[in-house]
Amino acid sequence: MSEQERPPVTVIGLGAMGSRIAEVLLAAGHPTSVWNRTPGRADPLVAQGAVRASGVAEAVTASPLVLVCVLDYAAAREILEPVAAEFAGRTLVHFTTGTPQQAREMARWAAGHGIGYVDSGMMATPPMIGKDGARFLYSGSQDAFERYRRSLELLGTAEYFGEDAGLASLYDLALLSAMYGMFAGFFHGAALVGSAGVSAADFAEQAAAWVTAMTVGLPYDAEFIDSGDYTTADEQTVAFNKSAFDMIVQASREEGVAVDFVAPLQALLARQVAEGHGAASFARVFEGIRAGR
Amino acid sequence: MSEQERPPVTVIGLGAMGSRIAEVLLAAGHPTSVWNRTPGRADPLVAQGAVRASGVAEAVTASPLVLVCVLDYAAAREILEPVAAEFAGRTLVHFTTGTPQQAREMARWAAGHGIGYVDSGMMATPPMIGKDGARFLYSGSQDAFERYRRSLELLGTAEYFGEDAGLASLYDLALLSAMYGMFAGFFHGAALVGSAGVSAADFAEQAAAWVTAMTVGLPYDAEFIDSGDYTTADEQTVAFNKSAFDMIVQASREEGVAVDFVAPLQALLARQVAEGHGAASFARVFEGIRAGR
Ligand SMILES: NC(=O)c1ccc[n+]([C@@H]2O[C@H](COP(=O)([O-])OP(=O)(O)OC[C@H]3O[C@@H](n4cnc5c(N)ncnc54)[C@H](OP(=O)(O)O)[C@@H]3O)[C@@H](O)[C@H]2O)c1
Ligand SMILES: NC(=O)c1ccc[n+]([C@@H]2O[C@H](COP(=O)([O-])OP(=O)(O)OC[C@H]3O[C@@H](n4cnc5c(N)ncnc54)[C@H](OP(=O)(O)O)[C@@H]3O)[C@@H](O)[C@H]2O)c1
Repeated sequence: MSEQERPPVTVIGLGAMGSRIAEVLLAAGHPTSVWNRTPGRADPLVAQGAVRASGVAEAVTASPLVLVCVLDYAAAREILEPVAAEFAGRTLVHFTTGTPQQAREMARWAAGHGIGYVDSGMMATPPMIGKDGARFLYSGSQDAFERYRRSLELLGTAEYFGEDAGLASLYDLALLSAMYGMFAGFFHGAALVGSAGVSAADFAEQAAAWVTAMTVGLPYDAEFIDSGDYTTADEQTVAFNKSAFDMIVQASREEGVAVDFVAPLQALLARQVAEGHGAASFARVFEGIRAGR
Repeated sequence: MSEQERPPVTVIGLGAMGSRIAEVLLAAGHPTSVWNRTPGRADPLVAQGAVRASGVAEAVTASPLVLVCVLDYAAAREILEPVAAEFAGRTLVHFTTGTPQQAREMARWAAGHGIGYVDSGMMATPPMIGKDGARFLYSGSQDAFERYRRSLELLGTAEYFGEDAGLASLYDLALLSAMYGMFAGFFHGAALVGSAGVSAADFAEQAAAWVTAMTVGLPYDAEFIDSGDYTTADEQTVAFNKSAFDMIVQASREEGVAVDFVAPLQALLARQVAEGHGAASFARVFEGIRAGR
């Protein structure tokens, strides 16, 4: 394997995720340097052939490609700001979870120091890294991403979203929002049927099939959202869904299920009907939460 | 087709759903009588061969099987209570959407008058009725359901949930809860990526695939819920998800997206961590909303 194909890499931050990232790259033949605040966490990797850097500056100068995966952006800044000079001319791929604004800010810092910056949103748990099903979202410098794409693809599917460094985090958090919404809806439904002694296992099977079937509706909602025109001839109006949803809330109260998860959508539907949008497509509830900046 | 296989039916309530129900039964060879408060709505069905009943009593006595589908339970009671005597010995399959308690109350009323009662939750829109994909949930008298099952199956998949007449409505509303949760999560995610100019269409494609993949987690959550034991060795704890979710909320604020749909789960996660359940499985959030009766 040529050095071109497997360039030296450095991994900074050897928690559950960083350790697994280093392990996968090392196993694939990348000369791998590692650094972690608590040095002992590098031991298993060193035993597998990684080189232990004695400090951050040494870690950074060991490789053209430096991957960072620590707890949060505060920790990442604390580690990286003192070594900006050593970092110049290299590529930083940043895996630490943060908000789009934090990623954009770090991209600006990197640009100011001649560092190629790629941000990543990791849709994986540690054991998934390097296996089927792991998905890594990337944004920031496309040059840098393309240069190291083959190495990054060792970790999981590598998807690039654009030069705006905040996009990977934005997509990551947006997909998580959709997932958590589904989970919250499932918990609420499980509590409803549970009030009559139905098991959550029975309901989970039904809910998984039903929710999956209902995802075919998302592209239709998206058409309304993207056009901004919510005029519809079909029955799936704000008013129709308000009636159905009011029934869910009423039934929840009758069965003693807390309405925490359902109250906000009920309130939004009621507001839109009151404002005269009852005949608009259900997708119009989007307008109640969209970015107003 | 023998009378046994296609018994006479009566359909009361000829709105969008009731009309379509009557049409499907009529087309399949059921001698069909119809009644609607506003008589003109029966015209198209009469043109297709249905018999117009001049009043509710005449409608009820025309058939051993009477299907009712009106706006709400108040309307259903208004129509049915005066004809309880005529209804004795017949079967009422009730399609009007209501809460489980409303269904149970009507089942008690029916039992008191010697009427076989089956309640239905319709998971279909009018054009879906009689086609693939329409799902009808039933509960109440199993005898009555089995007797007329072949007729009911003309409308769509017929699933029976148990003698408790409230179960069909409960399942219906529970599945709708899961669907609305998914939609709310999708709208929130679309608003997040939309803040950076990403189209909802792009996001819909991603979200549909991701949410579908994530439904495989529901049976695992259900195991925790059914056992009541939330002890876990994996990383999907309340505390871990709280951190991820806090990031969604922080990013939403930074991007100007309203937090209506995400605030309740954030609050619930925070409360459970504060109460010492941070190391429990994420599924424990269920305990924050479950029926406390
Ligand atoms: N675990 C997952 O399933 C998962 C999934 C997606 C995203 N993520 C994200 O990935 C990142 C890493 O997660 P993880 O699970 O690997 O976390 P972890 O196991 O808790 O490891 C945290 C790492 O951050 C380091 N660190 C924390 N504060 C530091 C500081 N002030 N200075 C230097 N180093 C510091 C720790 O060093 P010490 O060893 O010295 O404490 C350790 O290497 C987080 O942003 C997390 O949100 C995790
Ligand atoms: N449409 C759907 O996609 C859908 C899906 C699932 C469940 N549902 C449920 O199915 C039921 C019927 O819905 P739909 O779409 O058919 O409604 P619809 O088209 O609005 O029809 C309502 C029907 O109820 C009758 N009605 C209302 N108030 C009445 C009263 N006080 N006395 C007698 N009749 C009365 C109306 O008679 P008039 O013609 O005289 O006004 C009409 O026949 C509702 O409970 C709805 O929630 C509908």
